[in-house]
Amino acid sequence: MGDISQIKALVFDVFGTVVDWRTSIIQELEAFGAQKGISADWAAFTDDWRALYQPSMEEVRAGRRPWTILDVLHRESLEKLLTKYGIDGLSEEEKDHINKVWHRLKPWPDSVPGLHRLKARYLIGTLSNGNIGLLAWMAKNAGLPWDVILGAEPARAYKPLPEAYLRTAKILGLRPEQMMLVAAHNDDLAAAAAQGYATAFVARPTEYGPHQTKDLKAEREWDVVTDSFLGLAEALGCP
Amino acid sequence: MGDISQIKALVFDVFGTVVDWRTSIIQELEAFGAQKGISADWAAFTDDWRALYQPSMEEVRAGRRPWTILDVLHRESLEKLLTKYGIDGLSEEEKDHINKVWHRLKPWPDSVPGLHRLKARYLIGTLSNGNIGLLAWMAKNAGLPWDVILGAEPARAYKPLPEAYLRTAKILGLRPEQMMLVAAHNDDLAAAAAQGYATAFVARPTEYGPHQTKDLKAEREWDVVTDSFLGLAEALGCP
Repeated sequence: MGDISQIKALVFDVFGTVVDWRTSIIQELEAFGAQKGISADWAAFTDDWRALYQPSMEEVRAGRRPWTILDVLHRESLEKLLTKYGIDGLSEEEKDHINKVWHRLKPWPDSVPGLHRLKARYLIGTLSNGNIGLLAWMAKNAGLPWDVILGAEPARAYKPLPEAYLRTAKILGLRPEQMMLVAAHNDDLAAAAAQGYATAFVARPTEYGPHQTKDLKAEREWDVVTDSFLGLAEALGCP
Repeated sequence: MGDISQIKALVFDVFGTVVDWRTSIIQELEAFGAQKGISADWAAFTDDWRALYQPSMEEVRAGRRPWTILDVLHRESLEKLLTKYGIDGLSEEEKDHINKVWHRLKPWPDSVPGLHRLKARYLIGTLSNGNIGLLAWMAKNAGLPWDVILGAEPARAYKPLPEAYLRTAKILGLRPEQMMLVAAHNDDLAAAAAQGYATAFVARPTEYGPHQTKDLKAEREWDVVTDSFLGLAEALGCP
């Protein structure tokens, strides 16, 4: 491990690292479908929704469209999927409710107790591509005790652009070396490390369900490698 | 009181409403002066610092200078005051430490217990002209349990510009009618009400010290009028 004594803030990737988006969405969609009499392969629907995530942000990252928050990108992707799956007749209110399932994702079992331990020693915040409203309501729903909600929207840059990491540190008045990114994704950690951040890999081997093929383990010697936020708290000496 | 059943988020003015900036700064500067052997009228110094607050923001509001965060405006004002009071020889590190006294302001006695009660029912956040870093570190120092830190920096507009209120609601995905501004300042509440916000006036009659002449009482029939966050919690039915 590098010199972690200078770290003042821990910032977290959220989707997959803090919350189990896949299980949460499948369960909500199954319940919604049962209630409305709509049958579909909701696991496939959920995986398809997530598969549209990177391409939708890439339009913004590449400068082909102006800054657009993730709630809007999610909604556009949802419209495509409703067409693909032949689901019609939903009201605007119903579609808005479905889209906001991303505001209601459930944390992994260790997330909330681990964050409380880490919060006692560090400033803890998000560094997510989710927009501020999405992350704030998710935290309210799930009891995630963030000190501050940061990420793509205040930085006006989607990860893994360097600005997402650099501006987040600057907003807190810190140097990158005083920041640690916590993520379940090797590519996110690589991008943060390239900007000077310390790094913690938390393995989430079921994020993508039973057929997950990537991020099953750390691909580099990150400053911390663990499989839960409790392990991270141990590694950082947070009782 | 208007229809408060639709309110989903309470957002707070911070300087004066949540924290007692004047007493906090005078005490720190007196201790700093005693330690460094610098004598000055620290109460006057503090009042002068605050007096430069509105003019410094007005340069940004009026478009005469690009977006600049409050930490930077405070630092520029501090330099002017050090010259005015004939204080020289401070290191950059010492000036930075003094400037960050705004990150270490103490809450009024009712602020933390009141916020915990309000947080159980509402999403609570800042709507301050302070920048995100300033407000996040202040919250960490003072134990202010914000769900989200919003205000001038994410809105890119200093209060009382309408955009400060409108963009803050939009970031949360809410209509202004679903927001309540809590403030000790009638002019801030008037600006928020003009954009559709519900309003709560919390009297802080010693904010400006013994000679305070304004905001001693509510100047309009705000939705709630009280003198503490506990009174606000009562008025909103938060046990």
